Amino acid sequence: MEQLITLTTDFGTKDSYVAAMKGVILSINRGARIVDLTHEISPQNIAETSLFLKGAAPYFPEGTIHVVVVDPGVGTERDPIAVKAGGQTFICPDNGLIHPLLDLLPFEEARVLANEKIRLPEVSATFHGRDIFSPAAAYLSIGFPFRDLGPLKKELIEPEYLLPIVKEREIDGAIMHIDHFGNLITNIDVKMLANRSVEWVKMGTLTLDKVHKTYGEAEEGAIMALIGSSGYLEVAVNGGSAALKLDAKVGDGVRVSLL
Amino acid sequence: MEQLITLTTDFGTKDSYVAAMKGVILSINRGARIVDLTHEISPQNIAETSLFLKGAAPYFPEGTIHVVVVDPGVGTERDPIAVKAGGQTFICPDNGLIHPLLDLLPFEEARVLANEKIRLPEVSATFHGRDIFSPAAAYLSIGFPFRDLGPLKKELIEPEYLLPIVKEREIDGAIMHIDHFGNLITNIDVKMLANRSVEWVKMGTLTLDKVHKTYGEAEEGAIMALIGSSGYLEVAVNGGSAALKLDAKVGDGVRVSLL
Amino acid sequence: MEQLITLTTDFGTKDSYVAAMKGVILSINRGARIVDLTHEISPQNIAETSLFLKGAAPYFPEGTIHVVVVDPGVGTERDPIAVKAGGQTFICPDNGLIHPLLDLLPFEEARVLANEKIRLPEVSATFHGRDIFSPAAAYLSIGFPFRDLGPLKKELIEPEYLLPIVKEREIDGAIMHIDHFGNLITNIDVKMLANRSVEWVKMGTLTLDKVHKTYGEAEEGAIMALIGSSGYLEVAVNGGSAALKLDAKVGDGVRVSLL
Repeated sequence: MEQLITLTTDFGTKDSYVAAMKGVILSINRGARIVDLTHEISPQNIAETSLFLKGAAPYFPEGTIHVVVVDPGVGTERDPIAVKAGGQTFICPDNGLIHPLLDLLPFEEARVLANEKIRLPEVSATFHGRDIFSPAAAYLSIGFPFRDLGPLKKELIEPEYLLPIVKEREIDGAIMHIDHFGNLITNIDVKMLANRSVEWVKMGTLTLDKVHKTYGEAEEGAIMALIGSSGYLEVAVNGGSAALKLDAKVGDGVRVSLL
Repeated sequence: MEQLITLTTDFGTKDSYVAAMKGVILSINRGARIVDLTHEISPQNIAETSLFLKGAAPYFPEGTIHVVVVDPGVGTERDPIAVKAGGQTFICPDNGLIHPLLDLLPFEEARVLANEKIRLPEVSATFHGRDIFSPAAAYLSIGFPFRDLGPLKKELIEPEYLLPIVKEREIDGAIMHIDHFGNLITNIDVKMLANRSVEWVKMGTLTLDKVHKTYGEAEEGAIMALIGSSGYLEVAVNGGSAALKLDAKVGDGVRVSLL
Repeated sequence: MEQLITLTTDFGTKDSYVAAMKGVILSINRGARIVDLTHEISPQNIAETSLFLKGAAPYFPEGTIHVVVVDPGVGTERDPIAVKAGGQTFICPDNGLIHPLLDLLPFEEARVLANEKIRLPEVSATFHGRDIFSPAAAYLSIGFPFRDLGPLKKELIEPEYLLPIVKEREIDGAIMHIDHFGNLITNIDVKMLANRSVEWVKMGTLTLDKVHKTYGEAEEGAIMALIGSSGYLEVAVNGGSAALKLDAKVGDGVRVSLL
């Protein structure tokens, strides 16, 4: 069956881990169409995984099965789960990575991957991506019933958020992620700005007076604030890397004053 | 429909950008077969993109749709276009990246992606890869007529080339690209050497007396000149990195003397 | 035909090499399903390629065709070959990379890729991945008979192994590979430990008294020995990089004392 199965991991592709997962899936469902989302999540970084999923998963069609393996607790007591949300299915460890996505894709049902029929015959203690998560996705893709995966899971683990403090005329946030181009993506959601005007954006000793619409609006090399494609406030450099230019890192404070 | 859609970007895969493009394409055409060409073009490097496409696109079958997003001008007035050439289709910004490829694949027709039916309902100012280029490719792949994309585009932007100076007995060129193995690929095309013999190749203080046919012909660790697989003169080290050994960078001069 | 063709190379994806291989395959068999295993093998590292294949290939279904191009001898006299083993087919240079895998997948037959019908019309001296290996895989995938590839190859090249010395109460091994997480993977196979108890594991000045089952069993930041998912003894740091913490590199000695 030509079902879409996507892969999101922190494994990189230098080792055989991802390749083994693909082999396991194709051995169970030879017709599965595997789509690599990323294997470059920072090792064991759950916040980054959540942000990644929010930017990617909502664009996929109904019925897509996503395998997400960023799993600091592999081999310990955290549950392996399957979550139905917004018509799609997510196979992952229950460690908080899936929770923020439920803001965008309405939660339907979650189950623990307890049924031994949907695991490899031998489960290693260190590689559940291959032995538990991949076969579960592949079996679901050939019609294995969701309700037979294992017991219902009522509450999912919530991650510790890095949330900004929103006051009447000020928002105190922080850099949440630095992207491939060196753009600094903050945790200040465009919704927090509502339809109000921004007086300034401050980061360290830097003050920006305007929130732009596109990278190209500022002069070459100029530092600028803008609302990025994922709906968060960003600090960027037109044609360059803001991270390098400002020597910025994840967690650095960003403050916005509203008129 | 099982149409081939390839992706070439400078986005890396650490962020959700490429994953979102894949989701958009598969939501419009669930049967599309997406092929990653590269997401590792140096940020906003149009010359590198052109060289990449010349080495890759001619090997693809007729009817392939290529999405190419290296777009320093995103959100400004450059046109998003679709170009038919050599039986294949290229969806990209009109910023010069596609022009050099037309040496190898004969130009047929170009159109501006103006029709709002083939865009996402909301177009962000910063991420046309997701909002304009990917949906255009997906709609074409399910039979949307090329002529309905938008108005004809008669002239495509030409990039500023880094071309060698060819004299009677000498060619003055430069390093255009350093590949994954540290091979130094110059802008001196094998056609410029015609069937003439090379007296020497000079780079800085280094003089090479011979142009080899294969990496293996020289001794382990020896510096050598040869004609690479893409038809350009290269300087390489057998079993090592010429870039590291010679501390070379893109733009460094390379001179060839012809007999 | 919807045949699986996987790709394993040391080419990276920054250059057009892998993209050209995909184009060549899809031009011969438009229905081939190409699966990237890795393009991040360390340049020309045959031992790493063998280890990668042992961790990945056995998980793939019968009939899969694997193209493996890690080829220090490109353009010299080493043979391009096709190897049938365990119901799968491997297209690669005969330089030792395939030999260790035959421990896991029983050898059936090997042939030299001598037939000019399954090559591109022009074969470059430097890029057999595109000109010889990819078209051979594509032609096999559309039913070209294995026996018509070229003459039988009776003996495959054996690599020089990095094997541990196994004594009555001690095993003298070494670090064979450092993975993406900084885990140090040794050449000490779990089978060498049989069912005996480990007294200690030594690496430089470090002594570990226990072999754990999972990363999570040790305290955060603690150095530990465990049996990894591929069946080899590893030295790891819970939640961190053992390679950084211990300043370890491939080839460093590891000694195990057995009770």
